[in-house]
Amino acid sequence: MANPRHINFTRGIPAAECFPTEKIGAAAQLALRKHKTVILQYGNSYGFLPLRELIADWHGLEVESVLCSNGSLQIIELLCSVLLQSENKTVFVEAPTYDRAITRLRRHGAKIVTIPLQEDGPDIERLEYQLHSHKPCFFYVIPDFQNPAGTTCSREKREQLVELARRHRYIYVEDSPYRALRYRGIQEPALFDMAPDVVLHMSSFSKLIAPGPRVGYLLGDADLIDELAKAAEDTYITPGMLSHGIVYEFCHAGHLRPQIERLQALYGPRLDATLTALDEHLPESRSTRPDGGFFLSITLPEGVTTMDVRDKAADVNLNLSDGRGFFADGGGERFLRLPYCALTPEQLQEGIGRLADVVRQLPH
Amino acid sequence: MANPRHINFTRGIPAAECFPTEKIGAAAQLALRKHKTVILQYGNSYGFLPLRELIADWHGLEVESVLCSNGSLQIIELLCSVLLQSENKTVFVEAPTYDRAITRLRRHGAKIVTIPLQEDGPDIERLEYQLHSHKPCFFYVIPDFQNPAGTTCSREKREQLVELARRHRYIYVEDSPYRALRYRGIQEPALFDMAPDVVLHMSSFSKLIAPGPRVGYLLGDADLIDELAKAAEDTYITPGMLSHGIVYEFCHAGHLRPQIERLQALYGPRLDATLTALDEHLPESRSTRPDGGFFLSITLPEGVTTMDVRDKAADVNLNLSDGRGFFADGGGERFLRLPYCALTPEQLQEGIGRLADVVRQLPH
Repeated sequence: MANPRHINFTRGIPAAECFPTEKIGAAAQLALRKHKTVILQYGNSYGFLPLRELIADWHGLEVESVLCSNGSLQIIELLCSVLLQSENKTVFVEAPTYDRAITRLRRHGAKIVTIPLQEDGPDIERLEYQLHSHKPCFFYVIPDFQNPAGTTCSREKREQLVELARRHRYIYVEDSPYRALRYRGIQEPALFDMAPDVVLHMSSFSKLIAPGPRVGYLLGDADLIDELAKAAEDTYITPGMLSHGIVYEFCHAGHLRPQIERLQALYGPRLDATLTALDEHLPESRSTRPDGGFFLSITLPEGVTTMDVRDKAADVNLNLSDGRGFFADGGGERFLRLPYCALTPEQLQEGIGRLADVVRQLPH
Repeated sequence: MANPRHINFTRGIPAAECFPTEKIGAAAQLALRKHKTVILQYGNSYGFLPLRELIADWHGLEVESVLCSNGSLQIIELLCSVLLQSENKTVFVEAPTYDRAITRLRRHGAKIVTIPLQEDGPDIERLEYQLHSHKPCFFYVIPDFQNPAGTTCSREKREQLVELARRHRYIYVEDSPYRALRYRGIQEPALFDMAPDVVLHMSSFSKLIAPGPRVGYLLGDADLIDELAKAAEDTYITPGMLSHGIVYEFCHAGHLRPQIERLQALYGPRLDATLTALDEHLPESRSTRPDGGFFLSITLPEGVTTMDVRDKAADVNLNLSDGRGFFADGGGERFLRLPYCALTPEQLQEGIGRLADVVRQLPH
């Protein structure tokens, strides 16, 4: 095929055709009518109070335990700036993990220790081994539909994680933006719901409503929230209050649940199409089998590297990410993340077909 | 008078009664209709392209010289994170200067050198003296309607500043959010317009439209803009694109100029009321005489400190800021910033009256 259409497996972005644009517009009108003097003015750095109250209510928390910010990467930045001020700059992360989190951690001089990620969550033996010689300031984990792997932590491992944190006195930063996007199977409890004493929970509306408003939030200890709010004030005075007001009115009108259902109905078949195409075209690659989220990942056959595949794939207009960026401590040469939400089943089928052709043409 | 109403001279916030709420609502609808797939999605970290193009056009620049972010304090943060990575952490600031800028600079380990601010701008002799022993990474200046002093840098001093930067090879970060809010007199050229080779120019829509959308911008060298955009991407992926779209459509519809004229018509008489009340009630305090902006400042009579006044003022429900927070290197004990935009002429008259009573009752 000459000049086939570009297929992009690089960024984990939502499907634009599913943005609830009209409802966002209506929420904007309502927010401006009801809250104009608050959401157009400088406000406090904890975020728009009604939105914090709504989120607190979902989780049965006091509002003092909720901070809203400009997306959740910004929250990682605030967490780093508060938590990594101490002497202890050791941070545990899964391998692989979210590449932008690694960048933020490095930026703050974190000493990163990686815990291998297995199909059912972090390698607990390895974690116990590392806890003998390191005391982490925190362990950054993505238990649900992990980015980039696509794995979900089992109930058993969640219990072990909680137990280890209590025993070794460290906390988790649980990053959970994909949790609501389960297409099948049964939801495990969030680490935060199991053990709020040792867990901070982050989430975001970017994957559920849209990224453009940039609204993420953190749940956790009220004293820490105070410290983060001070750091936020010193960084940007007030978060995007207009966006907070819009997201609040969108949720308050009851649009969030149906929107999540629309996304599940759109993304579930995309995940299935990807898995089916992998089974058909690339049975020799080991793939994760997620039940939700934005990503799955494959491990290429022995002797084939993602970089080789990536170079050849570019020739057939297939764009892939370097897997090594997700591994803070080396490795990932054969790791390939496949974000499937923003591609149609046809594109996914076609993309995996091209990928298989490239892999097969490489010597291994 | 028992229990007089609270009067707040603490925060430099705009007057909420002047927010163009309906026009912002209309801009939101238009932005969502025209740009939904861009402003609701993750985008690049330079900001919404049409907004950058509009700002570039105002200043006769290429779009590559414009970065839009989440308010301008966030831009100071990005500047610190890029510029203060080098060995040279010396930063010059005016004394007094914007307290939040001092906080950001300290956070990044800047070695701050203060240049006293005079009625007509930085003390040039002192600046030359400090340049003998220090080479600043940059000099953070607020030439127009300075925060907190209320002074504006003269034409002559602007020329001297440019000449010194070229001779000693340093740059200015020109923070200019109040520049358009001139109520009388003649505008001096921005440092950036005089010498884009040695100046980065920051501004914001917070004081002109509203703070809640959080849209600030930087003009400067395209290579540096690239570096800042990378730092921005690593911090928050994408700025508030929805807000950028709203601000763009507001400006594109031609609403900005009439909005600025409305603000000038509202704020000019408030400045006059403050100056008149000071002349009447507090002739013994030395006051700056601004022609625009958000602030004026007074130096209390010998022997009277702002902290003494502040404590007593609280008893009559008059809230004042500690002047020392604006001086990075000590001083400011008798300095008092008076933000006047969000108070009515009656409140300003009443507030200055209370202030004068407090000052008179203190021993000095």
